[in-house]
Amino acid sequence: MKALVFDKELKLVDNYEKPIPQKGEALVRVTLAGICNTDYEITKGYMGYEGILGHEAVGIVEDVNSDDKSLIGKRVVPEISYGCKDPNCEWCAQKNYRHCPNRHTLGIWRKNGVFAQYFTMPVEVLFEVPKNVPDTQAVFVEPLAAALEINEQLHIKPMDKVVVLGDGKLGLITALALNAQNLNVTLVGKHQNKLDIAKAQGVKTALLNDFKIEKIYDVVVEATGSVNGFETSLSLTKPRGILVLKSTVATGKELNLAPIVIDEITVLGSRCGQFPPALRLLESDKIDFSPLISGVYSMDNAKEAFEKNKEKDTIKVLLKM
Amino acid sequence: MKALVFDKELKLVDNYEKPIPQKGEALVRVTLAGICNTDYEITKGYMGYEGILGHEAVGIVEDVNSDDKSLIGKRVVPEISYGCKDPNCEWCAQKNYRHCPNRHTLGIWRKNGVFAQYFTMPVEVLFEVPKNVPDTQAVFVEPLAAALEINEQLHIKPMDKVVVLGDGKLGLITALALNAQNLNVTLVGKHQNKLDIAKAQGVKTALLNDFKIEKIYDVVVEATGSVNGFETSLSLTKPRGILVLKSTVATGKELNLAPIVIDEITVLGSRCGQFPPALRLLESDKIDFSPLISGVYSMDNAKEAFEKNKEKDTIKVLLKM
Repeated sequence: MKALVFDKELKLVDNYEKPIPQKGEALVRVTLAGICNTDYEITKGYMGYEGILGHEAVGIVEDVNSDDKSLIGKRVVPEISYGCKDPNCEWCAQKNYRHCPNRHTLGIWRKNGVFAQYFTMPVEVLFEVPKNVPDTQAVFVEPLAAALEINEQLHIKPMDKVVVLGDGKLGLITALALNAQNLNVTLVGKHQNKLDIAKAQGVKTALLNDFKIEKIYDVVVEATGSVNGFETSLSLTKPRGILVLKSTVATGKELNLAPIVIDEITVLGSRCGQFPPALRLLESDKIDFSPLISGVYSMDNAKEAFEKNKEKDTIKVLLKM
Repeated sequence: MKALVFDKELKLVDNYEKPIPQKGEALVRVTLAGICNTDYEITKGYMGYEGILGHEAVGIVEDVNSDDKSLIGKRVVPEISYGCKDPNCEWCAQKNYRHCPNRHTLGIWRKNGVFAQYFTMPVEVLFEVPKNVPDTQAVFVEPLAAALEINEQLHIKPMDKVVVLGDGKLGLITALALNAQNLNVTLVGKHQNKLDIAKAQGVKTALLNDFKIEKIYDVVVEATGSVNGFETSLSLTKPRGILVLKSTVATGKELNLAPIVIDEITVLGSRCGQFPPALRLLESDKIDFSPLISGVYSMDNAKEAFEKNKEKDTIKVLLKM
């Protein structure tokens, strides 16, 4: 099968071996996949991963290696991690597979990813897509679940003043997700064209240069992935407020942690989330992700898609199988 | 009056003007004071403060500038900050003067400190010391309140596994305070003699070199004040666990924040606390702070006391007026 592989360098492979579902796994034929910045980070060495890239996908189940074949023919999306399922694993017992210390993660850690014609995943981490949600929306379920993870971790109150800093895909999706829950959110970024996407769907927006930096926000979501963004986030978080850290980039710069102590800030690391709430939000049709799509490429042009992803004005690039 | 002043350099002044209590303030004659590492940091430029140093003290009220003179003659300890008392200040309304944006802080920010024969503070931040608590215990109320601030911010459950990393005064006092509340705490440090002080009062202890570094602790209190300590703390905090950051030292080193996101760690900045719970704990006589006292110096030898504070084996140095 065709597959986009990272193996010290990025390679488009035509004859990659089609995977065989292991006991409890389904074989999924990919229809649409999304490129995430994490994929790009991996090509720079993040996680030391080698194999098929990609963890955002929609597909059709073609086979299931278990007695229950009911998933065959269903359109599904995969959560990105599955656990060890050891009866003593507290994380697997809670279905928090993304924290299982022996987890496997699609295209990131010990599991081939979705930038291919087929992938396999255990059935318990495959979720059926509601009928009214097209592939082009469903492919956003993983970053949307990551945005909703904030609500899983944190009680944001209706009166709380929330800022999302950064208007890249992560920031845009987070602002749209929080706004869709009737929260009082302002998206702050550097790109008017990107801010306008959120604004058109009812999100308050502001250009960073026009935005007053003051420590008055109850919740600040850092979605820039830069140290400067982290420092600006600290300058916006009120004493005893919460700074949600969404990006996995190393600082590469000296960082003064004293303001965290002096203002008793809570820095809350937040990663990927579970899919049912994200699928519910997609089904409700409260968010339109289509303005975020900067390009759709065929697998044959997957490397070009990767190049497109690096461009400044790009938001989300999709791969069509 | 005699006063220890930082004014670009550390000076013992013999004829510093005795302070006059402003409206609502009391004049307190200092009997005993404690040197904190923050005092030492200030002499290296922290906060840009100049004036009389010191914020840990016990004293006797000699005068009150208000109609209510009932505090005169009482033995008191001062919380370190007082607020603006503007009716619109949410922090002052909550008596959280330490977060008031217009606060004054003893010997740290816009208010002369306690390393002098007298200081003044508003009566609402002066607390009477229970009769059974000697000065040599009462002088620990400020760092003890800082330790108990963790309990104000965070629900530590009886089954939680807690590690305090660092056996300096901050770590020792924090471990003793958590242990006095029947929490499951282990103090980890590099100095057997310091660990033994906590061990003698029932705290589990371990030398860092003998301690297995694994991500299994629900709550880790970073009390080393070093970047290495912060990184070790991250390596001890379980996924979704809480790292309490107690030290206000800048990193001066590149820091990788990715583990905070990947493991969804909560980093909770924690500073100083309110005095009533600390005074209650002192009154209950559950902790003996006397083994932490490394020396008691007269004001005339205040600069020597400061030198003593820098020595490796020193824990707490006191100044007797």
